Amino acid sequence: MQLSTVARTTESSAIRDLLRHAERPDVLSLAGGLPAAARFPAAAVAEAAGTVLARGDGLQYGLSEGDVRLRELLTDGDPGAVVITTGSQQALDLIARVLLDPGDTVVVGDPCYVGARQVLGAAQANLVGVAVDGDGLDVGELADRLDEGLRPTFVYVVTNFDNPSGAVLAVERRERLAALADRFDFLIVEDDPYGALRYEGEPVADIPGDRVLRLRSTSKTLVPGFRVGWVSGPQWVIDAIVIAKQAVDLHTSTVSQAIVAELLGRPGWFDAHVAGLRPWYAAQRDALVAALHTHIPAAEFRAPTGGMFVWLRLAGVDASALLGEALDAGVAFVPGAAFAVERDLTDHLRLSFATVAADDLDEAMRRLAGVVPPG
Amino acid sequence: MQLSTVARTTESSAIRDLLRHAERPDVLSLAGGLPAAARFPAAAVAEAAGTVLARGDGLQYGLSEGDVRLRELLTDGDPGAVVITTGSQQALDLIARVLLDPGDTVVVGDPCYVGARQVLGAAQANLVGVAVDGDGLDVGELADRLDEGLRPTFVYVVTNFDNPSGAVLAVERRERLAALADRFDFLIVEDDPYGALRYEGEPVADIPGDRVLRLRSTSKTLVPGFRVGWVSGPQWVIDAIVIAKQAVDLHTSTVSQAIVAELLGRPGWFDAHVAGLRPWYAAQRDALVAALHTHIPAAEFRAPTGGMFVWLRLAGVDASALLGEALDAGVAFVPGAAFAVERDLTDHLRLSFATVAADDLDEAMRRLAGVVPPG
Repeated sequence: MQLSTVARTTESSAIRDLLRHAERPDVLSLAGGLPAAARFPAAAVAEAAGTVLARGDGLQYGLSEGDVRLRELLTDGDPGAVVITTGSQQALDLIARVLLDPGDTVVVGDPCYVGARQVLGAAQANLVGVAVDGDGLDVGELADRLDEGLRPTFVYVVTNFDNPSGAVLAVERRERLAALADRFDFLIVEDDPYGALRYEGEPVADIPGDRVLRLRSTSKTLVPGFRVGWVSGPQWVIDAIVIAKQAVDLHTSTVSQAIVAELLGRPGWFDAHVAGLRPWYAAQRDALVAALHTHIPAAEFRAPTGGMFVWLRLAGVDASALLGEALDAGVAFVPGAAFAVERDLTDHLRLSFATVAADDLDEAMRRLAGVVPPG
Repeated sequence: MQLSTVARTTESSAIRDLLRHAERPDVLSLAGGLPAAARFPAAAVAEAAGTVLARGDGLQYGLSEGDVRLRELLTDGDPGAVVITTGSQQALDLIARVLLDPGDTVVVGDPCYVGARQVLGAAQANLVGVAVDGDGLDVGELADRLDEGLRPTFVYVVTNFDNPSGAVLAVERRERLAALADRFDFLIVEDDPYGALRYEGEPVADIPGDRVLRLRSTSKTLVPGFRVGWVSGPQWVIDAIVIAKQAVDLHTSTVSQAIVAELLGRPGWFDAHVAGLRPWYAAQRDALVAALHTHIPAAEFRAPTGGMFVWLRLAGVDASALLGEALDAGVAFVPGAAFAVERDLTDHLRLSFATVAADDLDEAMRRLAGVVPPG
């Protein structure tokens, strides 16, 4: 008896093991990917749950494609165009199931969201990492590699306030990416969990065209524990996802879906809720940026205009090696190597400003500065 | 652009398409696999949800292995021995992921639960169907085939009130199956969603030994929409399942888990709830059995001692062909062919006694008798 090939090649990482220490009470952890529990709409959720369960909704088996009312709300009345998933993590897993055979090529940003790497690794995809800069995925590099013969099944990109880079994919890159998808016959998986958490400027239009699978989630704006995400896109992919979804878990929790539908169905409620989140997260970001300027002036980074993360470079520093010392000093981060696909990102770090109190972010960067070797 | 090999080979079946008509209001449908909504503990669920959400539980991201309190309740204090899954459907999918490479052999009963066939088909397993009789899986046939060289990775069996056969695997077969697993080095997946719904006799001991993955679920006894199941078994498999679970959906809905934990944590609550379900379901079964004796005396079946299904044979009848006429007459069932693996089960039918009112079961069998050809 032994594990499958996929299971044998999926291991818990050394970094993950080290980050277990980040949960110690003496550690100020900027390593997490969690949203701020202090900003959860707990009272509204409890009240909505009471309304839903008093009606007896959310108890029986449901449709694999998800709650009809929720899908109507998400699509302005066309429920067949969307599938509710157990978070957008599951949407990506289902996409991998229905589109990828082992060895198929997928393009991701480099650095790349760890959860996407896990899914695509389990699907035995051939992962190709394209550089990411302040304007997001380097679509020019992608074009060059396509010209050289690269043939991906799809390109995966976190379009707004990317994890970990914090970058927003520039509008001209979105348009060029769509044109490349048409020319080279690939799909685009547009993952956008953070888009509503914009602190400055105007939203950038979604990637155009009819080759886009759009992943959305309530995890960063409402509550993550409910695990309610959704995917829309070409109907032939959506239809295959519904069949796959039936096999993997029949459907997503109906009580989770019913509570989300109840809240999203209240005119203006979601917009007002998110309008309250934005200045709070913006102040958190400002506190972290100020603390970085004060304590670690050598850090190279762009202040993000949304989301939850600052991605920074400490030239010449091995961030993976630094993590042990940082934990001893009472501060945690995620080393860049955790997100690397092809590139050497050992001198990068991801810092979350979502969960440590603004007042403690200065102390956290003071502790980090104490273990950063002099430049 | 095209679908993956797995997606291309997973199609919606003709029977499923026909059964869409079973939802017409003029049809008495005995085709479903749903438990009785009339018996959901809706008030207790609503009250437990209020308690949980007033505490602010169930909102943040959780552990991939599941809610600690729930796992402690399910394991008498050893939470590391169990993983919470999005129903036992997901437990089986995760087991397939971590144990099966394409072409690996899995033994199932023949007839077999449709959801298991879907999962194992998607895993590209080599499915072998062993006969099922009134004492469950024919372990003697399995032993013969093992002697002839069959080498399964695991044997999947619904031990109590099997879907669709209704059979309980006899205790001596359980013991022999465990001995065969030791001798031929395979695992046993013991799926038991219906075990608590026993209407006569004493419970049969679980399959013994340390090669058993046990799948349990709240779907048939509490509410199915919450999608809360769990799996326990050899630690090396459980550890791999946790890693796979993280990739596929991070974790199961925390609000679903928290409500279930709240209810199961109340001393005596679950046992009292199930004690109330049993006589109600038993009366439903009695009504269907009486209606069969009255209207279709040629039907061959054993009255089940638990669960939700009667599995019957109408010798010489093509049940798949009969379904269209039955729907026209206002009654629905699932034809045996839907559950067949290797055998010809076209003269079998599965009838659920869970969701049609007891008073209507007689009328349903009257309608069915009207379209059954004379024997």
